[in-house]
Amino acid sequence: MDTQNVFALRGGKAEIEEGADFAPKFDADGLIPAMAVDATTKEPLMLAYMNAESLRRTLEIGEAVYWSRSRKEFWHKGATSGHIQRVVEIRTDCDQDALVVVVEQIGAGACHTGRNSCFYRKVVPATAGGTAKLEQIGGEKSFDPAAVYGKH
Amino acid sequence: MDTQNVFALRGGKAEIEEGADFAPKFDADGLIPAMAVDATTKEPLMLAYMNAESLRRTLEIGEAVYWSRSRKEFWHKGATSGHIQRVVEIRTDCDQDALVVVVEQIGAGACHTGRNSCFYRKVVPATAGGTAKLEQIGGEKSFDPAAVYGKH
Repeated sequence: MDTQNVFALRGGKAEIEEGADFAPKFDADGLIPAMAVDATTKEPLMLAYMNAESLRRTLEIGEAVYWSRSRKEFWHKGATSGHIQRVVEIRTDCDQDALVVVVEQIGAGACHTGRNSCFYRKVVPATAGGTAKLEQIGGEKSFDPAAVYGKH
Repeated sequence: MDTQNVFALRGGKAEIEEGADFAPKFDADGLIPAMAVDATTKEPLMLAYMNAESLRRTLEIGEAVYWSRSRKEFWHKGATSGHIQRVVEIRTDCDQDALVVVVEQIGAGACHTGRNSCFYRKVVPATAGGTAKLEQIGGEKSFDPAAVYGKH
């Protein structure tokens, strides 16, 4: 399917910022970043990327479909784990080069490490002579990734 | 300043996902995406990018410093508008290639269009034969960008 028929062509700054046409901007690799946010808790779950076709599919089926940069293939989130993301709302920003995907996270979590959110650590700034560290924040594993993803 | 002394070198998958070292992954352009989230409302405010030095400065001064891809310069958010983002917490994800910056947004808002958040529109899927549209969601302007940014 030709995604040019699904999204509007990008107009001038005023149209992009204030207009009613959805004209997403994809980067040089054809991707737009998409932050999935939990509809209930509002917690950020994961940041992934969509290309035009995965965004079109997401809108069509109402479940998040990303583009896997490492595997170079469509990534229907939850197809393997069952942890599907039902799309409640997709937001875009002023210049339409980023997305927030508000989702109902089905199953135990979004993260392949077995946690609800991929953002389970906070940065602790470096002390003199050291490097910055990470500290876990409520990142208890909510499922066993080995059981869910098999060989992983 | 050598940012290699501030961030850890990237180790193996287990170290990156479960370790205590902060070893952010910057893309081919030296950037990492950073989603600013309001500490009080949890609403996503804006998605911008940091390079190693802007991330180092952010950690140092406790206020968000991005890298402007369009202007190719450091972007101390609020330096022009007064709408500084005080950093409450920086989170990173499992593979450490994305950031969530939890901020206290000072002033009327994060968006240069005069709104609290850049994500003031949601996508309305295309109907047969049409293209996808946008609908405003609580995006009342909270300040006058002309007054705040001058020439803009």
